[in-house]
Parts: sequence; structure tokens; C-alpha cells
Amino acid sequence: MRDFTTYMDIALAEARLAAERGETPVGAVIVANGEVLAQNGNRTRELSDPTAHAEILVIREACAALGSERLPDADLYVTLEPCPMCAMAISSARIARVYYGAADPKSGGVEQGPRIFSHKQCHHKPEVYGGINEAESGDILRAFFEARR
Amino acid sequence: MRDFTTYMDIALAEARLAAERGETPVGAVIVANGEVLAQNGNRTRELSDPTAHAEILVIREACAALGSERLPDADLYVTLEPCPMCAMAISSARIARVYYGAADPKSGGVEQGPRIFSHKQCHHKPEVYGGINEAESGDILRAFFEARR
Repeated sequence: MRDFTTYMDIALAEARLAAERGETPVGAVIVANGEVLAQNGNRTRELSDPTAHAEILVIREACAALGSERLPDADLYVTLEPCPMCAMAISSARIARVYYGAADPKSGGVEQGPRIFSHKQCHHKPEVYGGINEAESGDILRAFFEARR
Repeated sequence: MRDFTTYMDIALAEARLAAERGETPVGAVIVANGEVLAQNGNRTRELSDPTAHAEILVIREACAALGSERLPDADLYVTLEPCPMCAMAISSARIARVYYGAADPKSGGVEQGPRIFSHKQCHHKPEVYGGINEAESGDILRAFFEARR
């Protein structure tokens, strides 16, 4: 039986692969009933697609695999606090639980700024757990941006 | 020279096509330098993709056409106030101006609820003009939901 730190390890591996591709290093995994449905990292540059954040890619992939626009049995693991776009996509997909790593004061949309899940215009609020392996997630991001300076 | 009501007419035509497909009838168009780069309607059911809102589809299509994840010269026309996901995608794509039709008190994210463009976590705020052909946009939505009751 794998636990949530193991799934976050998969997300962290995807973040490292994203860094190797020159993408902002964020990785995500979707899990349902103990099975990984999708795992991916940020690909906005590679795909010339500003919506190709790790969370959006795994949501689209898991939904396509199940033939459903809703994933009520699924949990999402992501190495960084989701931005407002991704938070709303998580809600629309009816994902049950979100586990994230580092908080993102600059661009986050869950615990700060627009706090997407806190408004009545948000029709599904997942359970949210932050700070999972946050030091490792933050280290990957810091190393990436320091190397590019 | 076509003006913004003409572009909104294209978006409204896309909304009607979405209704014919059984999708929530919202349509969108992206225009740059007088040229339509992409036009589409909501396809969440058809694609089993909760992110396949009209705005996301035209952003992805226009970015792919230009090979760029940013569209600083582009304007977006959409028949309904964007939801928080789409509003943030519009910001990330650096779209210059957003023209929308009806307000969306239930699920909107621009003028109500999370008011995406009003937070410091939003790094590009487009010019926003609401209420363009709003009666026609609202009529299409109302007719769709009344027919399904």
C-alpha cells in the first residue's frame, strides 16, 4: 500500500523532468483507487500552450482515459500550490483531494490571492492538504531559477 | 473594417453550434490585427475534458497557430463572463482585451467571486468590457437550459 508521500515522490520526479526540459519545474499525479491514472510535468514552452500546467495535463489525460469529464474518486498530488486556473480545473473535475508541496505566494490561487475554493462560484471544494514534501519541492524550484539567472 | 459587435456575432454563432452539440452554449473568438486566429465553442462533453471551455480551446488553438504561449496582440470575445479558470488562462496568455456578453453570477470569475484580475497573484490584467450583446448571449443560454428541463 503506497501512501501520499510516495505519490508526491512521483510528482517530484515529474518536476525534475520538467526542469530538464527547461520548463518551470512542477509535477503532478492523479491517483484513483490506488492506481496512477496520469502523471506529467509542466509543458507550457514545449507545447506553446499557456494552459499546459502539470495539473491541467494530468486532469485532461485522466479524464480521457476514463471517458469522463469528472473524476470524483481521484486525488491529485502536485509539487506546488495550484494557480487559480488549475484550482478551478480541479474543482470542475470534481477531484476529491488535493495534496500539494510548496506554497506559492507569487502565483498561487488556493491559500492566497483569489482563494478559488472559498467562493460560492466554486461548486465543488476538494479537501486540500498543503506542505507535503514542501522543502524538496521548493529546492527544485529554487535550483531551477538560480541556474537561469 | 469589422468592429467588436461583428466579432461577438462570430462568438454567438459558436455558442449556437455548441448548443446543437448538447454543450453549454458558450462561444469564443480570438482576433489579432483584424484577423480571426481561432473560434470555437464549449466542448467539455464531446472531449470528456472539464478544461475544454470555449476560451481555453481558442487560446490553445491560437497559441499553437503562432507557436507562442503568449498572445499580447490578441483580443478575446466570449459570449459569457469567463470562469476563474478561463480568466487566469487569459491572463497567462497575455491577451490584451476581453469582450464578454452576459455576466455569470453563478460561475463567473471576472466581475464577481474570485475576481481573478484584481489580485497581485495575477501578473497581467487585460482590459475588460462586459455586456457586449448580452441579451442575445443570455437568450441562447436560457433557451438551452429551459429545453433540457
